[in-house]
Amino acid sequence: VEVPLRILRALSRKPIHPFYDKEFSNLYKESVSFLREVIGTEGDVLILPGGGSLGIEAAIANIIGPGDKVLVLSNGFFGEVLKHLVNAYGGNVLTVDAEYGEIVEPAKVGELLEENPDVKSVVMVHCETSTGVVNPLEEIAREVRERSDAILIVDAISTLGAMPIKADAREIDIVIGASQKALSVIPGLAIVSVSERAWKAIERRGYKGHYMNLKLWNRGVKEGKWPSTFPVNLLYALHEALRMIFEEGLERVFERHRFVGGFVRSLVKSLNLRLVPSKEEYASDTVTVFYTPESISPSELRDHLLRKYKVMIAGGLGTLRKSTARIGHMGYGADKRLLKAVSSALVRSLRDLGYSFDLERVEEVLKRLE
Amino acid sequence: VEVPLRILRALSRKPIHPFYDKEFSNLYKESVSFLREVIGTEGDVLILPGGGSLGIEAAIANIIGPGDKVLVLSNGFFGEVLKHLVNAYGGNVLTVDAEYGEIVEPAKVGELLEENPDVKSVVMVHCETSTGVVNPLEEIAREVRERSDAILIVDAISTLGAMPIKADAREIDIVIGASQKALSVIPGLAIVSVSERAWKAIERRGYKGHYMNLKLWNRGVKEGKWPSTFPVNLLYALHEALRMIFEEGLERVFERHRFVGGFVRSLVKSLNLRLVPSKEEYASDTVTVFYTPESISPSELRDHLLRKYKVMIAGGLGTLRKSTARIGHMGYGADKRLLKAVSSALVRSLRDLGYSFDLERVEEVLKRLE
Repeated sequence: VEVPLRILRALSRKPIHPFYDKEFSNLYKESVSFLREVIGTEGDVLILPGGGSLGIEAAIANIIGPGDKVLVLSNGFFGEVLKHLVNAYGGNVLTVDAEYGEIVEPAKVGELLEENPDVKSVVMVHCETSTGVVNPLEEIAREVRERSDAILIVDAISTLGAMPIKADAREIDIVIGASQKALSVIPGLAIVSVSERAWKAIERRGYKGHYMNLKLWNRGVKEGKWPSTFPVNLLYALHEALRMIFEEGLERVFERHRFVGGFVRSLVKSLNLRLVPSKEEYASDTVTVFYTPESISPSELRDHLLRKYKVMIAGGLGTLRKSTARIGHMGYGADKRLLKAVSSALVRSLRDLGYSFDLERVEEVLKRLE
Repeated sequence: VEVPLRILRALSRKPIHPFYDKEFSNLYKESVSFLREVIGTEGDVLILPGGGSLGIEAAIANIIGPGDKVLVLSNGFFGEVLKHLVNAYGGNVLTVDAEYGEIVEPAKVGELLEENPDVKSVVMVHCETSTGVVNPLEEIAREVRERSDAILIVDAISTLGAMPIKADAREIDIVIGASQKALSVIPGLAIVSVSERAWKAIERRGYKGHYMNLKLWNRGVKEGKWPSTFPVNLLYALHEALRMIFEEGLERVFERHRFVGGFVRSLVKSLNLRLVPSKEEYASDTVTVFYTPESISPSELRDHLLRKYKVMIAGGLGTLRKSTARIGHMGYGADKRLLKAVSSALVRSLRDLGYSFDLERVEEVLKRLE
């Protein structure tokens, strides 16, 4: 995780005001209007103290009750996590599954909803971080809207702030993000947007817990009655991160991620390595997942990168754990200067470890960072 | 909240390592051994990303199931919060209540347990922050242990790190603390200790949620499989805070709080104001709650202190909201230098607002800070 100095400074800012005073309230409101633009919604946006998974579980706990038919879309590790969570809250899980590297087919979602008009919610990840595949949110949302009144819940933890979500235009009811990904804050805050339709479903469900209770957090925003102490400094940091995004311009931030995503994929291909997404148009602009050469295990590659070049890349997840490596390029990390360091370390490491490739072709790609 | 610079520096430290690497694991383990000493336990100690109330709700959710008879002790606002939470998880609530300003009587706890041998858990706060009363933990724990096998859950959020808990010696099963109180870190981490008996109850209960699941967080510590991204920087800050406590010496930290608590109470009495705790021995060394003079409302006093002297004290809570003010003096705030500023601002504000008192008597008390 690369966190810019400006954000670290905001994080450790003094004096530390209580979370119920006017300054806090103003910063909170400003952060929420920034987040609305990032998510593309006029609806409510809540900020919860905890990891991104707190946001996902809160959405599920507040919406899904015992026996509810829930359609979970899964094409990787995080899709499977969603199934476990829906199960934990008593949901009756139906699934549209896809192979790792493939997208979830919108048409299949449509079919399943036709066959099951009583599906109450659809739960999915936007970018499946384990494979680097971005699901076709627009098309899936259209299928959901045309065939049902189901609440559409989208885990956008690894795309929020890097790729467009357009929640209102696509009628997505709940979008979940986290502070530590493309927003470049440290971990510690979950972000949850809630549509009018979702509030009605929350009202019907009547979830009784406190800490994950979206109604109680919303009352905090509206009436200053908070269900828990808010980590004020994390809000300072989030606010600063959002200011940086809007100083650059949201569209330009998205463009920067598109450029960087395209660059990393070209680099991987010029190295004659295979991407996990089966088609390049499925690939996320925030994380690139690729199979390491047969002769080099992912952990060997990672250790070498870290030891020799002080560059950290991530290992594979789930069933891809032993065959793939992942390069994150989101937020502050989606930057030419940082990418130059990572790219040249990757190229050198592969060479150090005895993997051979067409250096000229690779250098042609590296030139794009000039 | 006064947060020392050293801790703020640790909070914003670079580079930011992922939460699953060796350095994180070492810092986590060291923090846990510090926390074990603070709590007085050889048992497991978990650190959860969220507010203190996350820790309380996690304890209740993991231990208490629908229909369980639960004895909740209450003598203030936070005791009432415990009742709501136990209710939310389906617990069948019995109570021993006491008036605001009084302690919960251990003998009454004993009687109720005699009459209800099927009580499965006892839930209580150590220091009731709304009144400044510390419940007699040792005596209550003795009653619980002599008359039942109930799991004893103690909210020690406003005493952990300032007053002795002695969890093992008193056979307290679960102790909950928070980073932002006497530990002087910013809010964002809950601390939960779990005894062997509590783990067995957790096993029996089989709570299915993820984020508040103590077994999953414990697996994180033991096997590196975490249920959520950990806010690494908050751990840096917590670790630094604990180092500061042990550099000073835990017993000396407790002593410092005893001195400061005694001082603030003497000051309030010399001003002819009434403490909320009905006896001085009931009063907490971490927070002092007192009735403001009839002619001065708590909000008037607070506003004047803040506007004219830049000193922030807290308002009353619950039914004491309109008649009391609260001075926190815990952790880094339990310090002679800081207290001097707060005390003289308080004395001046009362005079500014037309309240008269015996200045000589007050100055006699203020001398103790020399």
